[in-house]
Amino acid sequence: MPDQPIRGFPDEEFADRTRRAQALMAKQRLAGLLLMTEPEVRYFSGFHTLFWQSPTRPWFLFVPATGKPIAIIPEIGAELMRTTWVTDIRCWSAPSPKDDGISLLTELLNPLSREGARIGVMKGHETALRMPLGEYERLMTGLPGLEIADATSLVRSLRIVKSESEIEKLAHICAIGSRSFDQVPNLAHEGLPLEDLFRAFRREALAQGADDVPYLVGGADQGGYHDVISPPTPRPLQSGDILMLDTGATWDGYFCDFDRNFAIGRVDDASRRAYDVLWRATEAGLAAARPGNTCRELFNAMQVVISEIDEQTGDVGRLGHGLGMQLTEWPSHAEFDDTIIEENMVLTLEPSLGYGDGRLMVHEENIVVRADGAKLLTKRAADELPVI
Amino acid sequence: MPDQPIRGFPDEEFADRTRRAQALMAKQRLAGLLLMTEPEVRYFSGFHTLFWQSPTRPWFLFVPATGKPIAIIPEIGAELMRTTWVTDIRCWSAPSPKDDGISLLTELLNPLSREGARIGVMKGHETALRMPLGEYERLMTGLPGLEIADATSLVRSLRIVKSESEIEKLAHICAIGSRSFDQVPNLAHEGLPLEDLFRAFRREALAQGADDVPYLVGGADQGGYHDVISPPTPRPLQSGDILMLDTGATWDGYFCDFDRNFAIGRVDDASRRAYDVLWRATEAGLAAARPGNTCRELFNAMQVVISEIDEQTGDVGRLGHGLGMQLTEWPSHAEFDDTIIEENMVLTLEPSLGYGDGRLMVHEENIVVRADGAKLLTKRAADELPVI
Repeated sequence: MPDQPIRGFPDEEFADRTRRAQALMAKQRLAGLLLMTEPEVRYFSGFHTLFWQSPTRPWFLFVPATGKPIAIIPEIGAELMRTTWVTDIRCWSAPSPKDDGISLLTELLNPLSREGARIGVMKGHETALRMPLGEYERLMTGLPGLEIADATSLVRSLRIVKSESEIEKLAHICAIGSRSFDQVPNLAHEGLPLEDLFRAFRREALAQGADDVPYLVGGADQGGYHDVISPPTPRPLQSGDILMLDTGATWDGYFCDFDRNFAIGRVDDASRRAYDVLWRATEAGLAAARPGNTCRELFNAMQVVISEIDEQTGDVGRLGHGLGMQLTEWPSHAEFDDTIIEENMVLTLEPSLGYGDGRLMVHEENIVVRADGAKLLTKRAADELPVI
Repeated sequence: MPDQPIRGFPDEEFADRTRRAQALMAKQRLAGLLLMTEPEVRYFSGFHTLFWQSPTRPWFLFVPATGKPIAIIPEIGAELMRTTWVTDIRCWSAPSPKDDGISLLTELLNPLSREGARIGVMKGHETALRMPLGEYERLMTGLPGLEIADATSLVRSLRIVKSESEIEKLAHICAIGSRSFDQVPNLAHEGLPLEDLFRAFRREALAQGADDVPYLVGGADQGGYHDVISPPTPRPLQSGDILMLDTGATWDGYFCDFDRNFAIGRVDDASRRAYDVLWRATEAGLAAARPGNTCRELFNAMQVVISEIDEQTGDVGRLGHGLGMQLTEWPSHAEFDDTIIEENMVLTLEPSLGYGDGRLMVHEENIVVRADGAKLLTKRAADELPVI
């Protein structure tokens, strides 16, 4: 296996993230940030575990106006949290349906409530409330002086630009994904049930060095697939199928997210043409993904090419997005998104089109934006639809 | 690979789930249930996709007082939703930060708001709000007549008891997990980095037929491990290590969740004794997991044995839980949980104890409760700590 980056981050990186958050908080008169979602807790603390998959227990990280974050977490996470740079760790024995962290939170926030202070909670687009809504309402009722502001754009502005250490991890998992896709012609063959190909691909990605392959979707059907989010069926691959696999594999908690298309046995003309258009749309995206352009401009650059054969991309809703600790992050390459592209953003370019009788094709590459333009993290897809 | 169950469920199963929900809703004067979390949407619709890993788009399923559920979902999911028994599918082109389903929801719920009707939303223990909190608040402001009740216990009472088709899937993935653990002595050896063992175990579980291994945690250290939720380190296994692997593998969207302990090279006396106590605590749990007993009684039956050497189990917070579409589900085997155990509940028995100098040991088995008592879905762990 090739050399891999160092796992984790030096404490200084968390200190730097925290200081930058606190500088923005000062501008917005925020006395703290109350965070409870996995990527945010991990971003400021380094706390990294798959245990979030259990929905049972809420977890909280409070970023004060100055100083280190404070963890308010279930006892089961204390040992792991102690390995991070966080030192103020307050625990309760969870689950505890009558008081899952609420009294600890209340104790922490009461002085701020009495001052009529303002704190940030993530309430905006692409967020969720990862604690019971009833408990959140109860917490707020007990803190009547507290003003809650939406901290989504503050956190987004930090997470959307990646550090060099983050980019190293993303480059590493994208390389693993690329090597895995290179093996698909050896894994896929006529007669193989799609679900067995999925299993073989997952095994391949692990062998190539992925920690996990949490996301794998795709489709295969005669002359094109019809859906891009389904689990695999037991249907065997047939000559004339267009096959697509789209993977989100992870290394040290960072995702790649890209797909590859293949023809089984032979290619129909419509699929060949769709592939060509999308390949060129991606080229246009690569050229447009430069600092200073907006996501809307990036979208339009790809859409112009796509519209050679399809003007409707409403199905998928956008032509790419941010990438990092989550499979999909801000921004969106879409008409509505005027985010200005910055150096060190990591993005997907994901042009898609509808063609023929309800068929769909999607291409995807992952890039890092540098001062002089897009740099591919994925090995560029072949310029003609590969036939297996 | 052995025969596997049929994927998915017949429409009749979804119709039956919906009818049972509606009977409970009638008793609670609920005009509908507004659901937005993956297991709930899947439970009533059959909509099954990994795409939920993308946090970008909210998804909604409304269960009305009578008739089939209504899906309000991003356009990207329309094709897959049309393969389910749901026929009323209302879509928007998502993401759309200014209106991610809110106007469609408002249109649906407005008549109920005008009547001053009451609908259920899941707000209770072990739930989350899988839409932006700001959007939820905006939705409710626009529906001033609507009364929101907590539907957690209603949904919980349905999901907590499994159908025979669900039990078949759970039995299948537990058997896959058991066969995978049987191979650990062939995969693990002195000098192997723990992260490579994790990768090998994931590959083995896939080869044994798992669709995915989304959850894998564990530890290994001299004379016992210290933490049960960490990702693996690159530290090589050493003689004298106690190794634990805990996996949540899935098949057709259903989880197993159990662990196995191994000694590398040799066993220290304290770990041998801890293992023996936990093995017997599990036996006590197996005897107590009968219809009519409470989860508290089940907890106490295990705790009596555990207290031979440890009276503190606060770390982990409970000694097992429900199992199904989620890695951990209601109920909890804990002092606070007086849920009455019913036939066809699928549960984990997960006794744990602290010993020595901050060491921890956890055992886990998965069972289905039948009229005459617990039936193991996992192959029972060896009665003595296996040495590799």
